[in-house]
Amino acid sequence: MLFDNKEGEVDLFWLLLIMLVVLVVARFPGELMERIGQASILGELIAGVVLGIIIFYFGGHFSGLIDVFDSEAFKFIAYLGIFFLMFMAGMEMEVEQLMKASKKGLLIALGGVILPLGWGFGLGWLYLPDSEYKLVQALFIGIALSITAIAVSARVLMDLKQIHTKIGYTIISAAVIDDIIGLSLLAVLTSFLELGRVPSGGELFILIAKVFGFFIFVVLMGKLIIPRIGAKLLRTKSKELEFTIALAIAFMLGVIAEYLGMHFIIGAFVAGLLIREKVFGAKVVKDIKERVSGITFGFLAPIFFVSIGLHLDFSALGLALPFMLILILVAILSKVIGCGLMARLSKFSTRESLAIGVGMNGRGALELIVAAVALEAGLFAYPVPTPPVVVAIFSSVVIMAIVTTLMTPIGLKLLLKSTPELKKK
Amino acid sequence: MLFDNKEGEVDLFWLLLIMLVVLVVARFPGELMERIGQASILGELIAGVVLGIIIFYFGGHFSGLIDVFDSEAFKFIAYLGIFFLMFMAGMEMEVEQLMKASKKGLLIALGGVILPLGWGFGLGWLYLPDSEYKLVQALFIGIALSITAIAVSARVLMDLKQIHTKIGYTIISAAVIDDIIGLSLLAVLTSFLELGRVPSGGELFILIAKVFGFFIFVVLMGKLIIPRIGAKLLRTKSKELEFTIALAIAFMLGVIAEYLGMHFIIGAFVAGLLIREKVFGAKVVKDIKERVSGITFGFLAPIFFVSIGLHLDFSALGLALPFMLILILVAILSKVIGCGLMARLSKFSTRESLAIGVGMNGRGALELIVAAVALEAGLFAYPVPTPPVVVAIFSSVVIMAIVTTLMTPIGLKLLLKSTPELKKK
Repeated sequence: MLFDNKEGEVDLFWLLLIMLVVLVVARFPGELMERIGQASILGELIAGVVLGIIIFYFGGHFSGLIDVFDSEAFKFIAYLGIFFLMFMAGMEMEVEQLMKASKKGLLIALGGVILPLGWGFGLGWLYLPDSEYKLVQALFIGIALSITAIAVSARVLMDLKQIHTKIGYTIISAAVIDDIIGLSLLAVLTSFLELGRVPSGGELFILIAKVFGFFIFVVLMGKLIIPRIGAKLLRTKSKELEFTIALAIAFMLGVIAEYLGMHFIIGAFVAGLLIREKVFGAKVVKDIKERVSGITFGFLAPIFFVSIGLHLDFSALGLALPFMLILILVAILSKVIGCGLMARLSKFSTRESLAIGVGMNGRGALELIVAAVALEAGLFAYPVPTPPVVVAIFSSVVIMAIVTTLMTPIGLKLLLKSTPELKKK
Repeated sequence: MLFDNKEGEVDLFWLLLIMLVVLVVARFPGELMERIGQASILGELIAGVVLGIIIFYFGGHFSGLIDVFDSEAFKFIAYLGIFFLMFMAGMEMEVEQLMKASKKGLLIALGGVILPLGWGFGLGWLYLPDSEYKLVQALFIGIALSITAIAVSARVLMDLKQIHTKIGYTIISAAVIDDIIGLSLLAVLTSFLELGRVPSGGELFILIAKVFGFFIFVVLMGKLIIPRIGAKLLRTKSKELEFTIALAIAFMLGVIAEYLGMHFIIGAFVAGLLIREKVFGAKVVKDIKERVSGITFGFLAPIFFVSIGLHLDFSALGLALPFMLILILVAILSKVIGCGLMARLSKFSTRESLAIGVGMNGRGALELIVAAVALEAGLFAYPVPTPPVVVAIFSSVVIMAIVTTLMTPIGLKLLLKSTPELKKK
């Protein structure tokens, strides 16, 4: 049977009802945010997470409701949400932008990776209990702190009409580099987890070789195959075909990434990088983006945000409250100082440097994805019995992501609105 | 865990790989069809079904592959495919068009329902074994024969530049009425199946009252609530919001339809009817359609078509070959004669009447949906042990849908291209 309710599979009625509730509850705060000049993803993200929490604590009263969230179908939809979010994130970046990233952008990006990575790793090493997984867990915290949400910063900079200024340009290009480094590290981390233990020297070499091999394959594909597809596509007029080809590229790279022991989101992300205006033409890329954006933000992403909220564990957070607070503090300080210092060294003014640091501080949805990937890989389940601080890593990182994401627009507005000396590019 | 491969749930690698294969294999024949002047859905439908058959017969060689198709996640994606196909089908129809349907259109539509319904029911009654389900099974065959694929006919008429002629107009409006009657009957049928047996007089009354109640609710919603939402929507500029609201309406009506014991596809379909240009404005409807069309035809529908192919049972078909052949013959004759005769009575020429009959004969994807709904409801599983002819109903109806859908463009081209006496409207 195609979809049989009677054999204990998820009840379709509840599944539809939940998707309806998620759409209405998580989307409208997004619109509200947009109207008060914030990035809509912020409202969606918060509403989704809060809804997830509410369902988790009160959903037990409705039989069938919790079953839906435990169902493979719901999880898969949330997963597709991650897939499309990553694909979208990749498309939002133009590789050209990245290539043109000035020495300054690169320096600031390095500051925004090295400090959070090191401090995060150190924090983990100090707080986490000894186990086979301690190294990987500490590494995860470091990676989680290195992420920068491009979408939120870009949106705020656009609103402030600062996106085409030197500061805006620097923030975006540094953020792009940070995320690519962060995701490459995540690829290595997932490979560790796939292996089930910290790898030996030889294994580590193979893992890193695989990650590099994958990126080289992607670059070759971008140079040799994609332009041919792009040229053909420019001649057709079917918008469905454009969308299908873009999706097929994303699924293909996702499959290859999975096959190589990395995570499929890496594939979705680099697929997004390959969908470039230079190759496909501005019109085609715009069409594809519109469709992906519709299905992502209008449908799948809110469901993913809810699934994140469902996994927040407040009892563990309560037991590991100091850890969470320190994590948030370290996250903010390491990014702001790491990026700000490099900006100051690159001859930006102190206020500009602070603005750059604040602009790089938001973690956004990408952080939630990184956390979900680690959760799913079972990173927070060791040692057994699991101490609260390990259980709390996931929830702490999610709350850190929300806090830093909320801070970005507020901080940027304060710093940039009152900055008359900003040099136009 | 969010999505754990280790606990026996579906393997994500295979799921992504299959979606990739489905996208590539099922979509490109669709494009090919479009290039040789056929409706692309035809290529997709056939390629999907053939792919499903291939996987069914050869998939056993790949461990994990069959698990994917049995997984809730795959079924749910196929199900979403149905949902969006129905939503799209509803949007393709403008209620205004329907209201303006001339007496002629109505007459032809009635001919196209009554004859197929009666003959189909009679065929079922003759061939099917006695059981509690015989009446409902025979009714299903009747309903299956009454369906008309609007999308295919519309596409062919557009290609032949006949869509705005009297003949094109008549075919489309009659097809719309046929599908609405067919889907209303399906709603009653699903209510029967929900009940698990043929209802008593009182129960039948309640069922029909529910169906009518639902449609009255939808009409009221269309008159009172939707215009307000539409007016608000015209003032915002967020395309994601448009898409979300359209989706929310569809999910809401789907949930209500399910709750009332009808099928959620009825809700999706009427939701599509409510997304009208008159209310939302041409621009908004175009945006919504583009997004729904992208996600439907570029992603979900091909997966649904494959799932149909997976359920084709050739051994049963072999044992019940005469039944299938007679079913196809009755399907063609009842539609062509039913519609053609009424057209002739409405003072169309003989050739025009034949063209109208042929134009109404294609069943398209809607038939596959109707068949999938009946399959899922367990209609073809009684009596136990199930005789081949009952098992073969599903496969026969699917093959009938494909044959009649293939015939439509060929027949219409032959009849209309050589018709110089066609009156322009």
